Amino acid sequence: MSARLLIEYDGTAFHGWAAQPGLRTVQEELERALAVVSRGPLKLTVAGRTDAGVHALGQVASHEGDPVSARSLNALLPDDVAVLESTAAPEGFDARRDALSRTYVYRVRLHRERTALQRDRVLDWRYPVDRDLLDACAANLIGEHDFEAFTLSKEPYISHRRTIDRSQWVERDGLLEFWVRADSFTRRMVRSLVGYQLDVARGAWSIEQFTELLAGAPRSAGGRAAAAHGLFLAEVAYPITAMDGSPSG
Amino acid sequence: MSARLLIEYDGTAFHGWAAQPGLRTVQEELERALAVVSRGPLKLTVAGRTDAGVHALGQVASHEGDPVSARSLNALLPDDVAVLESTAAPEGFDARRDALSRTYVYRVRLHRERTALQRDRVLDWRYPVDRDLLDACAANLIGEHDFEAFTLSKEPYISHRRTIDRSQWVERDGLLEFWVRADSFTRRMVRSLVGYQLDVARGAWSIEQFTELLAGAPRSAGGRAAAAHGLFLAEVAYPITAMDGSPSG
Repeated sequence: MSARLLIEYDGTAFHGWAAQPGLRTVQEELERALAVVSRGPLKLTVAGRTDAGVHALGQVASHEGDPVSARSLNALLPDDVAVLESTAAPEGFDARRDALSRTYVYRVRLHRERTALQRDRVLDWRYPVDRDLLDACAANLIGEHDFEAFTLSKEPYISHRRTIDRSQWVERDGLLEFWVRADSFTRRMVRSLVGYQLDVARGAWSIEQFTELLAGAPRSAGGRAAAAHGLFLAEVAYPITAMDGSPSG
Repeated sequence: MSARLLIEYDGTAFHGWAAQPGLRTVQEELERALAVVSRGPLKLTVAGRTDAGVHALGQVASHEGDPVSARSLNALLPDDVAVLESTAAPEGFDARRDALSRTYVYRVRLHRERTALQRDRVLDWRYPVDRDLLDACAANLIGEHDFEAFTLSKEPYISHRRTIDRSQWVERDGLLEFWVRADSFTRRMVRSLVGYQLDVARGAWSIEQFTELLAGAPRSAGGRAAAAHGLFLAEVAYPITAMDGSPSG
C-alpha cells in the first residue's frame, strides 16, 4: 500500500519544498507531522519541488504504507500548510515519477499602486503591457523546446527539453494570470517564462528574441525571472490507474 | 479643497481602523504617513470603522487640504496597507457623512479540511449548509429593519434601524460569499448576519427565529457572530457631486 497527499501551502515563510538542514521547509514540516501520526519516520516524494516563496494550491506527495488521517496531520501542522486529502494509492505509487503533467499559474497585477491584501500572492507590475505580444509569446511556447535559457541549473549536462501543452494568459478578478502545463518543468522555468514574456510585452525585447531562446540558447542569453511570490503550483495530473487506490493492472 | 483616499488593507495585524493609544491601527499608520508627506498633521474621516482582523478592498477616507501623491504615501506605509487612489474632492467632502452606502463581502469555505493560503481571509466552516435556507435568510434581510440583536453596542440608546438593499449568497472560486449593501451598518452587524444565517443553514435555528430577530429583538436574543477574518469592506458609494473633484453645486 502507498499513500497520496494533496497539499496546499503558503510559500512565503518556507525555504521551498525540499528539506535543507537548518531551514524551514514544507517537506520537513510534513514529514515531522507524518512521523508522529504514523509512529515512525516516513519519507515523502513530491511532484513539484517548489522554490522559496512559491505557493501550492494542489501539490501532490506520496509515501509508503497506509494513508493517515488528513485531520490528524492538520492538527499537527502550522497554519501555512494544509493537507487537503490523504488517500490510498496503488503499491509503489510515486508522486514524482508517475505524474503526467504539472500545471502552474502565475499572477500579475497591473496598473495599480500596489496591493496590501495580496502582497505575497501576486506580482505588482508597473510597466506597460502589450497584451497581444503576451498572447503571441504564449502561443509560441506550445510544443517541445529546449528550455536551457529558462533554467537555473546546477547540473549543466541534464536535458532541458520539455513539452508544453497549455500556455495561456487569462484575465480574472482584475489580475492577469499565466497558466502553463507541461510534462515537467526545469528549475525556475515558469518564473523565467513569465519574466521574459513581460519583458517582451513592455517592449524591452522583441518577440523574435524571445522565440529564438526556445531553441536551446544558453542560460546567459536569458533575461530576468519573475519574483517567486506570484507563482502557484496549481495541479498535478496522474493516470487513472495511479489514482484509484487499487492495485495497478 | 478636500481629498479622498481609496485604501486597501489586510486587517490581520491591525487592531481595526480607529486609532487607539498603544495599539497598531490603520488610521494611525495612514495619518503618520500623511503627516510626513503633507508636512503637518491631518485627521482622517473614514467611511467604515472596521474592527480588528477585518479587511478592506475599497475603504474610503477623507482629509482637508490638497490630495497628496498615493505613491509617496505608499513609500512610507507598511506593506499591509496600500493607498490605491488619492484624489481631489469637493470642499467639505466627508467620507463618512457623504457615503450613500457601504458594501461588505464575507467569505466562507465549506467542506475542506482547511486552507493554508487563505487562512486569514476566509472562514473555514465544517458544518452542513442548507443553501436554500441561506438564500431564504438573505432574501428576508432586504428592506428596513431594527438590527439591535445583530449589534455589539456600547451605546444602547442609539438607533439600530438600517436599510439593506443587497443581500445575496454567491458561489465563487469554490467559496461561498455573502454580499450585503446598506446605508450603513451597526457595529458587528455583518459578522452577526453571517453567523446567524450559518446557524440557520446548519439547522441550529429555524428561519422563523432568525426573521423574528429583525423586528428589534434585544442583543441577548442573538447568536454568535462569524469571525472577523472572513470579512471585507468591499466598496463605498457616494453621490456623483461628491466625487468629481469640483466644487459641489
